[in-house]
Amino acid sequence: MLPLNPALAATFRPPVMEARRWLEGVNFTPDRPLINVSQAAPVDPPPEPMRRAMADAALNQPDAHFYGPVLGRQELREAVARDWSHAYGGHVRPEEVAITQGCNQAFCAAIQTLAGAGDEIILPLPWYFNHKMWLDMQGIRTVGLHCGQGMIPDAAEAARLITDRTRAIVLVSPNNPSGAEYPAETLRAFFDLARSRNLALIVDETYRDFDSRSAAPHHLFADPDWGDTLIHLYSFSKAYRLTGHRVGAAIASEARMIEIEKFLDTVAICASQIGQIGAHWGMENLKDWLAGERAEILARRAAMEAGMADLDGWKVKGCGAYFAWVEHPFDMASPELARRLVREAGVLLLPGTMFMPEGDAEGARHVRIAFANADTDGIGMLMARLKGFGG
Amino acid sequence: MLPLNPALAATFRPPVMEARRWLEGVNFTPDRPLINVSQAAPVDPPPEPMRRAMADAALNQPDAHFYGPVLGRQELREAVARDWSHAYGGHVRPEEVAITQGCNQAFCAAIQTLAGAGDEIILPLPWYFNHKMWLDMQGIRTVGLHCGQGMIPDAAEAARLITDRTRAIVLVSPNNPSGAEYPAETLRAFFDLARSRNLALIVDETYRDFDSRSAAPHHLFADPDWGDTLIHLYSFSKAYRLTGHRVGAAIASEARMIEIEKFLDTVAICASQIGQIGAHWGMENLKDWLAGERAEILARRAAMEAGMADLDGWKVKGCGAYFAWVEHPFDMASPELARRLVREAGVLLLPGTMFMPEGDAEGARHVRIAFANADTDGIGMLMARLKGFGG
Repeated sequence: MLPLNPALAATFRPPVMEARRWLEGVNFTPDRPLINVSQAAPVDPPPEPMRRAMADAALNQPDAHFYGPVLGRQELREAVARDWSHAYGGHVRPEEVAITQGCNQAFCAAIQTLAGAGDEIILPLPWYFNHKMWLDMQGIRTVGLHCGQGMIPDAAEAARLITDRTRAIVLVSPNNPSGAEYPAETLRAFFDLARSRNLALIVDETYRDFDSRSAAPHHLFADPDWGDTLIHLYSFSKAYRLTGHRVGAAIASEARMIEIEKFLDTVAICASQIGQIGAHWGMENLKDWLAGERAEILARRAAMEAGMADLDGWKVKGCGAYFAWVEHPFDMASPELARRLVREAGVLLLPGTMFMPEGDAEGARHVRIAFANADTDGIGMLMARLKGFGG
Repeated sequence: MLPLNPALAATFRPPVMEARRWLEGVNFTPDRPLINVSQAAPVDPPPEPMRRAMADAALNQPDAHFYGPVLGRQELREAVARDWSHAYGGHVRPEEVAITQGCNQAFCAAIQTLAGAGDEIILPLPWYFNHKMWLDMQGIRTVGLHCGQGMIPDAAEAARLITDRTRAIVLVSPNNPSGAEYPAETLRAFFDLARSRNLALIVDETYRDFDSRSAAPHHLFADPDWGDTLIHLYSFSKAYRLTGHRVGAAIASEARMIEIEKFLDTVAICASQIGQIGAHWGMENLKDWLAGERAEILARRAAMEAGMADLDGWKVKGCGAYFAWVEHPFDMASPELARRLVREAGVLLLPGTMFMPEGDAEGARHVRIAFANADTDGIGMLMARLKGFGG
């Protein structure tokens, strides 16, 4: 038999693909279709003018088909720098922006620059499973940080977990899977902690465009030395419905870009040019449209919270952006519940165990609902199905 | 200061990006334009009907914008399985095909399944630098295997380099950077060696569509148990001019696909859907066109060999597909030569040192010329410029 890297073999399989396999052999009918709230994935393509811009580039713009710079197309890096500087009241230069093949890859790149086998990274619990998978396969130890009220992690708690092998703390806000929007003071406290202990603070803001707060979610970029501590991650996938194009970004110091470029050169060479052209077009042209998208997601969130309040025994622990982290009332573990919900209620959601260390009771008691994939009618139907499920 | 992963910090920077920096501040004029033979990159976009198919998908096919399966679009995996089974006289099933964001990523995925920090991988010299970079940053030791006559590696030599930490041997055929087309017997000998020592044999055939031999380059897929030893890598970038879309493939056993899927899920989620749609369209519709492309590349190769034969002191050591590995006649190391050629001859090529371990004399004496980016007129001009360069 061929050699097998034990670190990869010990990593769990992609949860979203596993959940898709639960659908096999189950029939859904037009009058009772599947309600799929398993993944944060826009269900419609980008708006027509943006599709037209991408199609036009594919047809008429030769460089849409050529290799691009490893760190991304210049105009997109410039647009991000400009937009971020404005949105966060800070100072971001194009040289501090890398365009990646999706935000997952931005995370992998950031971690690769910081840590190797035997090092430790602190992740709040529940975690985003792809983060855990990457750390596992790199031989990096994940140190879980339980969250308190409102699913907000506490910097003082995190401080107690730091060892001489700790290299970074990772925060996702708005959070996947809990939906929690971390207060600016929380982010500042983690930033100060990371700085004082010579760690990196990675802040993944994939869902920032759907934050319910209208002001900047933090002011870390206003610190003239932010690059000594902060690595910020972003995804164009959710805002502009570009999931199938894989375009994300990492924002970090220019010195760190030298290291990020090495990683991206080997694993990517460059992000899809058409995807980058689409993302740039979206940034330039879809500000108002995106504001409407955000309002729609916030309406869905309100529907989600109202619906859940009416459901006996279910408790919303966190809710925001695309996700709710919900305690279920049944006397069964979440993986069994999730599989039964597919067959008996036509609902696909992910069990909390996918987001928690093995054996942690919180995983068995909770589920993640990616409610933003359903419109308010769909959310109503989801509630009716959950209500009708006997457990 | 932030932590820095020493394995990444010790990895060299992307050579192609470094070479591009040599162009800064150098003026090229319309009557004496830059001849860029530094990178294997088609200089034209895909043919118009293929661009139209991709544009049409962007405009009218919603799933072109959605997440796809981690291992690739089903129709593309099926097309590869069918085509490979036919081309190699073997047995490849769709479940044994993974679509990746370019062939570099296919290499990273294959390695991740096999080896971790402290393990060893055997690479013939000169190597493809992105392979070396990935191994470096993973903490894997690269064991170099010097090639013999015609730049062909010898399996018996490789056998002497195997230790209990060896996990795989990597062959690239046609080779980057040497252009060498490895004989079927060579590939078979390496396959037998790998099998007998429980190693993986990774065969990167990125340039297979431009092999000068019309028959199958090897018969390894005809072995019913090929999946116990072989991992095959491919790129759609060169054949279909899709470099900017990042579409490659890894072909391996179904058991290994479980591990490859974990890696791809974290670093990619999926390859660009538009890129995959283009690659599939190309496979279905461009067979004749690709035959013409191959004939053109073979004509350029002939022009390259003829031109070089007329140049005093230059010696072609290997030539095929996109590349020639050439010994230069000057009393200076190749990095100095390469920089002087930019300024004094308007030629950008890569020094051999980028493909060899530090201090190896072969690196200083050789350069890689990606001649296939120039047409036969361009190759003639290249020869004239090299002839006029005084050294």
